Amino acid sequence: MTEPDESRLVWEGRLLGVTVERWGDAEREIVEHPGAVAIVSVDTEGCVAFVRQLREATRRVLLELPAGTREAGEPPLETAQRELREECGLSGGEWRELAAFWTAPGFCRETMHVFLAEGVERGEASPDPDEQLEVVRVPAADLDAHLAEIEDAKTLVGVLLYLRAAAAAG
Amino acid sequence: MTEPDESRLVWEGRLLGVTVERWGDAEREIVEHPGAVAIVSVDTEGCVAFVRQLREATRRVLLELPAGTREAGEPPLETAQRELREECGLSGGEWRELAAFWTAPGFCRETMHVFLAEGVERGEASPDPDEQLEVVRVPAADLDAHLAEIEDAKTLVGVLLYLRAAAAAG
Repeated sequence: MTEPDESRLVWEGRLLGVTVERWGDAEREIVEHPGAVAIVSVDTEGCVAFVRQLREATRRVLLELPAGTREAGEPPLETAQRELREECGLSGGEWRELAAFWTAPGFCRETMHVFLAEGVERGEASPDPDEQLEVVRVPAADLDAHLAEIEDAKTLVGVLLYLRAAAAAG
Repeated sequence: MTEPDESRLVWEGRLLGVTVERWGDAEREIVEHPGAVAIVSVDTEGCVAFVRQLREATRRVLLELPAGTREAGEPPLETAQRELREECGLSGGEWRELAAFWTAPGFCRETMHVFLAEGVERGEASPDPDEQLEVVRVPAADLDAHLAEIEDAKTLVGVLLYLRAAAAAG
């Protein structure tokens, strides 16, 4: 059984939607989301870029990997390269996918793709006027010391996978 | 500015709700969620428990850490011990928090607490009749080989932090 018996959209906003599905005797409330990306970038000086910004849902300022929501039909790599350029002014480099996962599979259809971009070059950022963010550069060798400051899932996954790959490479 | 200018609940279900908030010129759609927990458990035979179950939102069967949603006012550790006993029949042991984080801070108020429970003892599981799940025991020494099968954020964070702590302990 991998399709619901019944599905109805009960709320629709600009970014999100909510669907209620019936699966046999169970009813599930599901958040619709277009999917997102995040990037672990290492620039030509060996620094990883983070962004510090108010996250309204949390009521707090968080230190996160640069990230963004996919446009309809946009391949994840394209979103990632666009967001890294806009938020941090970083472009070029060698890209590969570190991980792809569900952020909250119990109730949400958001998928997250995390990329590693190595050797990116610094240029001019052009953040969305709706976003007020500060770019924070952390030397890759100091990432360990910043783990305790990280408070969101995608950033934890990205940094932990990067540290693991770096350790394996010696 | 850490409070919205305006906030209204636009949809409310049994588990989730949606609030639309105005922050200056920006409008944010925010999913309300009571919070959740997940557990990396190591039993007296050195195995880590996972659960394999259909996740309706993803339309797939996922291999995840045992996890659950907090009841109103329930401390995360209490939820975690209850869920591990109910889903996997595991109890006792030494517990500590591995991490606490936002699963999707761009649009959701869910917080996730991940615990490590070492030396838990095997007993009888009593899963929710609404849940059909298979318990999968993986020797802690083989966790590495299962990383590629993991497809959700909390399980990735939990397993990566456990592997990191194990590597540091030698």
